[in-house]
Amino acid sequence: MAPNGTVSASLSPFGVARSTVNEKPLSDEEVRKYDNYFKASMYLCLGMIYLKENPLLREPLKLSHIKARLLGHWGSDAGQSFTYLHFNRLIKKYDLDSIFISGPGHGAPAVLSNAYLEGTYTETYPDVTEDVEGMRRFFKQFSFPGGIGSHATPETPGSIHEGGELGYAISHAFGAVFDHPDLIALTMVGDGEAETGPLATSWHSTKFLNPITDGAVLPVLHLNGYKINNPTVLARISHDELENLFRGYGWEPYFVEGSDLESMHQAMAGTLEECVLKIRGYQKQARDNNAPFRPRWPMIVLRTPKGWTGPRKLGDHFLEGFWRSHQVPITDVHSKPESLAKLEEWLRSYKPDELFDKEGKLIEELRELAPEGHRRMCANPVANGGLLKHKLKVPDFRTFKFDVLKAGVSEDGSMSRFGTFLREIVRNNMDRFRVFGPDETQSNKLDAIYDAGKKVWLGDYFDEDADGGNLVFNGRVMEMLSEHTVEGWLEGYILSGRHGLINSYEPFIHIIDSMVNQHCKWIEKASEVEWRQKIASLNILLTATVWRQDHNGFTHQDPGFLDVVANKSPEVVRIYLPPDANCLLSVGDHCLRSSNYVNVIVADKQNHLQYLDMDAAIAHCTKGLGIWEWASTDAGEEPDVVMASCGDVPTHESLAATALLREHLPGIKIRFVNVVDLFKLIPAAEHPHGCTDAEFKAIFTEDKPVIFNFHSYPWLIHRLTYKRKGQHNLRVVGYREKGNIDTPLELAIRNGTDRFSLAIDAIDRMPQLGNRGSAARELLLNRQIGARNYAFHEGVDPEDLRTWRWPY
Amino acid sequence: MAPNGTVSASLSPFGVARSTVNEKPLSDEEVRKYDNYFKASMYLCLGMIYLKENPLLREPLKLSHIKARLLGHWGSDAGQSFTYLHFNRLIKKYDLDSIFISGPGHGAPAVLSNAYLEGTYTETYPDVTEDVEGMRRFFKQFSFPGGIGSHATPETPGSIHEGGELGYAISHAFGAVFDHPDLIALTMVGDGEAETGPLATSWHSTKFLNPITDGAVLPVLHLNGYKINNPTVLARISHDELENLFRGYGWEPYFVEGSDLESMHQAMAGTLEECVLKIRGYQKQARDNNAPFRPRWPMIVLRTPKGWTGPRKLGDHFLEGFWRSHQVPITDVHSKPESLAKLEEWLRSYKPDELFDKEGKLIEELRELAPEGHRRMCANPVANGGLLKHKLKVPDFRTFKFDVLKAGVSEDGSMSRFGTFLREIVRNNMDRFRVFGPDETQSNKLDAIYDAGKKVWLGDYFDEDADGGNLVFNGRVMEMLSEHTVEGWLEGYILSGRHGLINSYEPFIHIIDSMVNQHCKWIEKASEVEWRQKIASLNILLTATVWRQDHNGFTHQDPGFLDVVANKSPEVVRIYLPPDANCLLSVGDHCLRSSNYVNVIVADKQNHLQYLDMDAAIAHCTKGLGIWEWASTDAGEEPDVVMASCGDVPTHESLAATALLREHLPGIKIRFVNVVDLFKLIPAAEHPHGCTDAEFKAIFTEDKPVIFNFHSYPWLIHRLTYKRKGQHNLRVVGYREKGNIDTPLELAIRNGTDRFSLAIDAIDRMPQLGNRGSAARELLLNRQIGARNYAFHEGVDPEDLRTWRWPY
Repeated sequence: MAPNGTVSASLSPFGVARSTVNEKPLSDEEVRKYDNYFKASMYLCLGMIYLKENPLLREPLKLSHIKARLLGHWGSDAGQSFTYLHFNRLIKKYDLDSIFISGPGHGAPAVLSNAYLEGTYTETYPDVTEDVEGMRRFFKQFSFPGGIGSHATPETPGSIHEGGELGYAISHAFGAVFDHPDLIALTMVGDGEAETGPLATSWHSTKFLNPITDGAVLPVLHLNGYKINNPTVLARISHDELENLFRGYGWEPYFVEGSDLESMHQAMAGTLEECVLKIRGYQKQARDNNAPFRPRWPMIVLRTPKGWTGPRKLGDHFLEGFWRSHQVPITDVHSKPESLAKLEEWLRSYKPDELFDKEGKLIEELRELAPEGHRRMCANPVANGGLLKHKLKVPDFRTFKFDVLKAGVSEDGSMSRFGTFLREIVRNNMDRFRVFGPDETQSNKLDAIYDAGKKVWLGDYFDEDADGGNLVFNGRVMEMLSEHTVEGWLEGYILSGRHGLINSYEPFIHIIDSMVNQHCKWIEKASEVEWRQKIASLNILLTATVWRQDHNGFTHQDPGFLDVVANKSPEVVRIYLPPDANCLLSVGDHCLRSSNYVNVIVADKQNHLQYLDMDAAIAHCTKGLGIWEWASTDAGEEPDVVMASCGDVPTHESLAATALLREHLPGIKIRFVNVVDLFKLIPAAEHPHGCTDAEFKAIFTEDKPVIFNFHSYPWLIHRLTYKRKGQHNLRVVGYREKGNIDTPLELAIRNGTDRFSLAIDAIDRMPQLGNRGSAARELLLNRQIGARNYAFHEGVDPEDLRTWRWPY
Repeated sequence: MAPNGTVSASLSPFGVARSTVNEKPLSDEEVRKYDNYFKASMYLCLGMIYLKENPLLREPLKLSHIKARLLGHWGSDAGQSFTYLHFNRLIKKYDLDSIFISGPGHGAPAVLSNAYLEGTYTETYPDVTEDVEGMRRFFKQFSFPGGIGSHATPETPGSIHEGGELGYAISHAFGAVFDHPDLIALTMVGDGEAETGPLATSWHSTKFLNPITDGAVLPVLHLNGYKINNPTVLARISHDELENLFRGYGWEPYFVEGSDLESMHQAMAGTLEECVLKIRGYQKQARDNNAPFRPRWPMIVLRTPKGWTGPRKLGDHFLEGFWRSHQVPITDVHSKPESLAKLEEWLRSYKPDELFDKEGKLIEELRELAPEGHRRMCANPVANGGLLKHKLKVPDFRTFKFDVLKAGVSEDGSMSRFGTFLREIVRNNMDRFRVFGPDETQSNKLDAIYDAGKKVWLGDYFDEDADGGNLVFNGRVMEMLSEHTVEGWLEGYILSGRHGLINSYEPFIHIIDSMVNQHCKWIEKASEVEWRQKIASLNILLTATVWRQDHNGFTHQDPGFLDVVANKSPEVVRIYLPPDANCLLSVGDHCLRSSNYVNVIVADKQNHLQYLDMDAAIAHCTKGLGIWEWASTDAGEEPDVVMASCGDVPTHESLAATALLREHLPGIKIRFVNVVDLFKLIPAAEHPHGCTDAEFKAIFTEDKPVIFNFHSYPWLIHRLTYKRKGQHNLRVVGYREKGNIDTPLELAIRNGTDRFSLAIDAIDRMPQLGNRGSAARELLLNRQIGARNYAFHEGVDPEDLRTWRWPY
């Protein structure tokens, strides 16, 4: 018994339809047809889970027809398919341009069955024909080794949202409709998914959608009632709370609740139509008056039983309308003949003989219910974004260069300079490029962009906003303090054929580790799917980096995103750490033009020393790593020591260490190496960018000490180079999780990455220096202590360290 | 000008108070005093940001009094302090037991100033005295190298929530009040923070709070209006939407809006009192009737200008009430005398001479406004949870053992067995132990726990719930489909002195990478703070692991959380991969008894072969790694090859490979090694668990091939062992991001971790085998191909592989 008699009847998913809209737009004949279409789809969903032979039950069901291993999820299929097929009617009636986003976990059968019924599946995969044999293949491949998955994977026509990890349906949908003014993204949101943080905040996306230049998202919150083993929160709060919640989020909720098929068909048809008309009405209002505003966009709350149309009970246990229908609904068909019989009875209850003709094709009167050509949601080219992708018009990045007259002497803001380049990209690509970020674009010194495109804001305005608020209805910069939402928008935007970049503080990019993982996985699989065209790369610009988070303290110091990215497929990921502005421009240009990658660029936002003129920068970035001869003293000979760096602040300190060595130990042969493209370090066999052992040796030697100053955790370098000969000579320093409220110098010293520690490390590895080395070591140690004491008392590093320049 | 005249006056934070409650509980005298207390706190906040000398302005302000580097955030200080001090009144009046949680970013000055005014700060840090010199130290240390940070770091008395990363204020607060029935967590939520996903969903926590056994959270959403450079979403939606939103989330919102001090003091005092009375009323109702229910708990929306009490404008720019007051409000005091004068004028406007006495101590009539002893929010022992922590009563884990008669022959569900151990821990610790997870406890085979404590659910109930729903008002298992929320609850629960464990599918633990990072950072710093007592470890149990996600596909395959954890401080993190049930019990027992760690345990939930009897398991886990002699043939001599494994599935395959080698190449000397404690591999100098080079050599040799089958990405092993002699002989295999819909065998083959590949790897590294080796290699390859073909056609691996047992 439920505790204390709080059983709620009003929230039951069963019974005759209760709905906000009470129109009955369908004739009896239409109800019959849509119901049959629904049954056909349900039959396919169930068939996918169970059958490998005898797909249309033309002979009695036997064990040999059943897959050996039963996999797949039944729970959310009905509600999703129900929504899909009723939207088909409106697509035909109003010639809508729509895609379908399937948020609920493991809901692929709903999408796959509809793709098959409307013919898209067979067009995409000609061997899966619309006949008995094709249906057999269609069934067997599902959740079968070598086949297709239970999510809307890249193999699924019409999908831009796999839904393997939950929470991103709404943000992906918004990303897809930005700058696609005619598009409607019909978006199913699972009520389990709706409990995730990313989904819970993404409802606010309406404050960033322009009704003139953007399309619309029509969310259908599927109150399926249960997750794996639990009720969902939103299915167990009062109707009043639920309605308030969505009004609070800024939507107009329409309810469709029940299980009775006839009335539910009418209710869903009428409600979807009302929503489409509302959407078109708001768009027309804004567009006719050229006056953008934020309407209360419609959304639907669809409450149906989990596992709808399945058996209500199996033995003593609830199935339909309970969490037991989440996955494979009858699990013991292999061992219990009566369960096999029950399955057969259930399959036959959909009357497949009446829905599919003799060849096994959907009968014509049902086939007519689906739209045609690209209007079919699974055939919409938006969902194969590479098809629509126009080239990004990138101005010559060289024109934004910093004139480096002498390396290591002038300072410049690499990031603000990069901002001017981004500004021109925005200006040249107003219909296809946006910049995303969680409230940090200005803090990250990229505000030059605002000259070409300001921040989109459809919330209310205050007078103060005129004082540099940079808010507009129709902008190019998308900022909300949710890394999840802005990342989701960007993913949706590029998956549907456009280009973009996200900028973030380095420490907080870990918040979207998992999203980026999932996008990498999507890209990798998509690139194996022949019909999928390449999409623009996902560009992640990380700044406010660890070495300049000395004052924000320990919580703001974490460069470990690179470790997460480095685990992903080498076909997909690229990591760049440009040491100065011209390198950042060169790398940025490359990334923005590329496709099907996840590019991570790490560069600090403060002013930094500049090293390479543009030609040198291009050459250096093209090679990915190289010797900086102007900083070296080995003159082409074997060096005594190699000073290597990767990252802008590390390069600065390594150069300063090199200068200290030259000052205190004139005559030693130093080679200075810089790495821009991190994957250059890995063996050529393991990453397309990896260099050969010969190339590696030519740079780092095989037997000389290498003092490698790395931007991130030092172990990543060891993980990339453990196979290299001479790796034992590699002394890598980097962030070792040592920090608090410090000066930049103190933070570096704690982690052994400051100039003094680096120079001392080098001396320690050159025993041949003898007493000369010991004396220099002592001196450097004293200078380090002196600088440290000064910083501790004054709160800033000594002037000479702050203004240090390359002296040669 | 704002676009299209949509300027909203009704949402202005300025003017006379507008509030839901219109009581005026304060006398004029009280208003004067609270206003002075507020001014004292604001003076301290501003002083912290700027001053290193002359703290009470007893001489004219000079540049030499100003810190060289100005750091700190002014924006949210006023609203937070305002809330804190008005709650002091109610603590005194009703003898409340309360803590303060500061959600808004960089809001430490508000907390620090109140801690100082109420005397807690000086009691905690006796050198920061309540006099001029103490105040000078108090100011100077703030955001100063070697000093304290701008968040509520572990050094901050009364803090369990640093707030360096945003989004977890509400979930931490709920965690703290679970099983603390008298506690009220007064929780400030920044409106920037409120945009994050984790925060947006954590409002639903009320569905999991029992009004009898748990305390209450009183959230104050601080509509400060702006983030770094942007308005906040919630400050720019209509009053109607805002109210609906919080009613929808299940709360009763009370509004307090304005900037006029006198009326705001009355409004805040009255509103907080009404909320406290509501809370106490609901608790009494539930407790008197012993009938838990979910009330509409009160929460407050406090709308005040950002930078409240600061100058409205600086030159032509808005300061108060705009984002320009976010950080250091006047930045050019070093270079502009008029700015320095403006700062002095502003500081003096709080009239410090009237608030602090000659010695520099807060005057007595104000000091009396604060509570005393442990009732002061910054002195509440709950916020130094280790003080309150009672030992977890752990039954003898040996009694749950699996009887292993012969290694590698019987199967058992390690996880379900571990569940019985957890069940008894729950039973023995009903007031201090909870299990957390995102809807997967049952799926993870831990449902034995429900016999001692079911799942907490305060949402509505359905009849179906009686059919194995396991929902109760007063349970021990906390499940919501938000990894963020359950992790936040657990963190709050252990930070306030209790014990717990989170269980999750391995692939989706990346969702909380960043939260775990932040908790690691908290633990590390907290352990350096003398007065902080150790808290229970954060125990993370990962299951549904990569090698059994073959059928769920690529999105469910990611064991990379270990890489994220391995970057954290060795003083804090521990990683265990027990190969069988008895090892899992031994490791679990150790973790649950430990303190101040983040323990990660990885073990699959399916049935697996069992290897070690309990005594052997304890010995093995105590060593952390070791040679399994029963599986080895080297008989104490130098082996020809070392077969090593780490993780349960890898151990199974490595043993099967060992058996293949013994079958096909009798006579070769094989040493079998298993690693339970991952950090054993790292040098002793780098982690407390690391083994010496001698120990490492005794296990792995220095010159023999080692075929190491690792659970996660293989590079992690190289990163841990790159310093070891003989590391070049280490062939590590693991998940290499290769997978799709596969059988377990196929997934392993794709990544080179199956028995055949492992055996072939071993043969390839023993050239001394000559033709004998080549013949065996050929045979193994054919067996692999055969098995693969079978799996491809049948959808399952061959029977003999599935039922394989250790044959010796």
